[in-house]
Amino acid sequence: MENGTTLTKKKWGFSGNSDLTEEPETTIRGALTLLMSNLNISDDRPVIPMSLSEPSAFPCFSTSHIAADAIAEAVQSTDFNGYPAAEGILPARRAVAEYLSQDLPNKLSPDDVFMTMGCQQAAQTILHVLGGSKLNILLPKPCFPYYDVFAQSSGLEVRFFDLLPEKNWEVDLDSVIAVADENTVGMVIINPGNPCGNVFTYSHLKKVAETARKLGILVISDEVYGHIVFGENPFVPMGVFGSITPVITLGSISKRWMVPGWRIGWLVTHDPDGILKENGIIRSIKQYFHISPYPPAFIQGALPHILAKTNKEFFSGVLNIIKKASNSCYEGLKDVPGVTCPTRPEGSMCVLVKLDISMFEDIKDDLDFCVKLAKEESVMILPGMSVGLRNWLRVTFAIDPSYLQDGIKRLKSFCVRHSKRA
Amino acid sequence: MENGTTLTKKKWGFSGNSDLTEEPETTIRGALTLLMSNLNISDDRPVIPMSLSEPSAFPCFSTSHIAADAIAEAVQSTDFNGYPAAEGILPARRAVAEYLSQDLPNKLSPDDVFMTMGCQQAAQTILHVLGGSKLNILLPKPCFPYYDVFAQSSGLEVRFFDLLPEKNWEVDLDSVIAVADENTVGMVIINPGNPCGNVFTYSHLKKVAETARKLGILVISDEVYGHIVFGENPFVPMGVFGSITPVITLGSISKRWMVPGWRIGWLVTHDPDGILKENGIIRSIKQYFHISPYPPAFIQGALPHILAKTNKEFFSGVLNIIKKASNSCYEGLKDVPGVTCPTRPEGSMCVLVKLDISMFEDIKDDLDFCVKLAKEESVMILPGMSVGLRNWLRVTFAIDPSYLQDGIKRLKSFCVRHSKRA
Repeated sequence: MENGTTLTKKKWGFSGNSDLTEEPETTIRGALTLLMSNLNISDDRPVIPMSLSEPSAFPCFSTSHIAADAIAEAVQSTDFNGYPAAEGILPARRAVAEYLSQDLPNKLSPDDVFMTMGCQQAAQTILHVLGGSKLNILLPKPCFPYYDVFAQSSGLEVRFFDLLPEKNWEVDLDSVIAVADENTVGMVIINPGNPCGNVFTYSHLKKVAETARKLGILVISDEVYGHIVFGENPFVPMGVFGSITPVITLGSISKRWMVPGWRIGWLVTHDPDGILKENGIIRSIKQYFHISPYPPAFIQGALPHILAKTNKEFFSGVLNIIKKASNSCYEGLKDVPGVTCPTRPEGSMCVLVKLDISMFEDIKDDLDFCVKLAKEESVMILPGMSVGLRNWLRVTFAIDPSYLQDGIKRLKSFCVRHSKRA
Repeated sequence: MENGTTLTKKKWGFSGNSDLTEEPETTIRGALTLLMSNLNISDDRPVIPMSLSEPSAFPCFSTSHIAADAIAEAVQSTDFNGYPAAEGILPARRAVAEYLSQDLPNKLSPDDVFMTMGCQQAAQTILHVLGGSKLNILLPKPCFPYYDVFAQSSGLEVRFFDLLPEKNWEVDLDSVIAVADENTVGMVIINPGNPCGNVFTYSHLKKVAETARKLGILVISDEVYGHIVFGENPFVPMGVFGSITPVITLGSISKRWMVPGWRIGWLVTHDPDGILKENGIIRSIKQYFHISPYPPAFIQGALPHILAKTNKEFFSGVLNIIKKASNSCYEGLKDVPGVTCPTRPEGSMCVLVKLDISMFEDIKDDLDFCVKLAKEESVMILPGMSVGLRNWLRVTFAIDPSYLQDGIKRLKSFCVRHSKRA
């Protein structure tokens, strides 16, 4: 069909972008959609949501009023109605720098901090910045599945390294070295671990940094569950090792403050030797923010107060509930036939649990297990395939304690009912 | 370099993404950065900001307390701390549907509405959804420059059609037809106009729709300045013509409520014949939102109250100030040598003004004019090259009236000083 003044089209010239694909069941959202569609609406019992780390729905996990009041005050102040700077307003960046510096050997500068729409946009940003033809990124297996999605949409090839369940889900450093090559740009770790519920030790993180240094790659550390630790290992931010290899940490207030719906987070660079700057990473991060959505100015404006003034009692209160729930979950699972929890969870809000498919009569894999569990018991648990490990389950324990108890009970009932007869 | 357990790299494997480039002076941000760097810091006078349509800094343009209070109430309610649905929460989508339907012949459904981080993300979304190899999009010239940036990053080729200054900046429909071909997916219009300050008539918009229909393309109508009209022509939403050709409208509360920092907007489909659905556009929009940032839940939660309860007195009060400012600007510019305003502004917050370079002694183009104006008079005006029209100026009049008066006076002084001697 030619250009011209009498051009008349019989059909439409537009269609949906073929790069945007339907969400497969292998993603969290895809799996959840499938589970929800299988819930039995005639079941009067409450649905037990052990599939998404989203405790804010439960009163026992309400956020601190200090945080909500800070937002209210900021929006009513009229100081934050205008466009914020693309990298974030200075008070917010300064506040995040101070907040994170409490756990670091070197103080961060506000220039090391970029404000993002939650941890998710921080992840999207760094992967896009690192993206390019023929390059690859190393992701842990299992992993939070958005990393795979974002990496691919940034044009990065994804390669996986293993986490070792028998060693508290530590990184298998040999597998990192085995998959890396000269086109590898970085590796991602999640600490505290999602989906594993583990917490890396200081010495292990140091080895991770040293391995990355040998490979000439940076470390992206997703610390969205930072400080949500309740076992033997303290939370050690990866930025501690920024002088060994450049580190990018991703974080937010979503989990620690129980407000994932507020969408406020950060991307932070730990690079005392200026390597990221020299290699064009900082410039690219700034350029990315010029063409991307950014957090509302008043939420950023409230952040200094939220980070500095939320009282310790709020954190310890919430952590206490999560710790008890994690123990309750771990202990309860011991009595459930066909599932094994290799390590007691120490952090985050979920734990990976191994499924012994051979013990069940009519369950073919983890997805089938979870679909039937949703249908028969109105319990939602995430199949391990969503996080890269078939025939495992990701169990979220950070829910109301009575719901958790009920959930474990129904899970046990389901497993007993489906167990092969002896 | 090979894979192997003894791999030691001497250099780093990462660098910034070459697709992310430095912002040239031809973008608004690029131009503003240049202007600001040229301001004379020894000049005691206040800087007059006539370069960015951002009146929220001025007390006379404070938002309605009803809006701020609604946000405060929503965040303190604890109802909106969890993850919202990717396309937006139902109450917000319903509220936007009702708000927009007041001016449409057919009622919108909440399913026609998608919540976005301001109008900007709505624009990014639809361009990405339409994107694809060898496809092109038609943009007006002059245009808000982000459309060019977003289109290119979506892989779309950009082609421009003309707006006619002598006809109140109407679309030159012949130029639309001339540049369209079988790979054209859509055309963008901005109404009320940025940067032109015009308002399209009903009959003209109908012709735009009919032209698009003949070409088999959809119309994307950026209505971020919707209802900010103060001349003879009323605001007519493009959705009125959704039965002629599919229409996508982009909007937000940023301008009408004076809160661009709140980042809440919408993408709305007007498609009574289901053409967008049939061509995969709706599905792609939903998929895009699954991998993109989304507005905080509590801001969405407050939207029904904001849209329904903000009183008319607020809108008429603000519009009155903008109208007076637009007249004051238009009348004031008549006395400024070397600049001509082809049409009295009727809408939005800015107007395009033609520069007669030949009248000046030592000004080589619009960018040079604006840089020198910033340096000598501490007045910031946007060079037309930022919006695609060299040797024009985009003048924002929606500022404090006394600032505006001062700004026009200083502009006149500058032009007189730089005029060629007779």
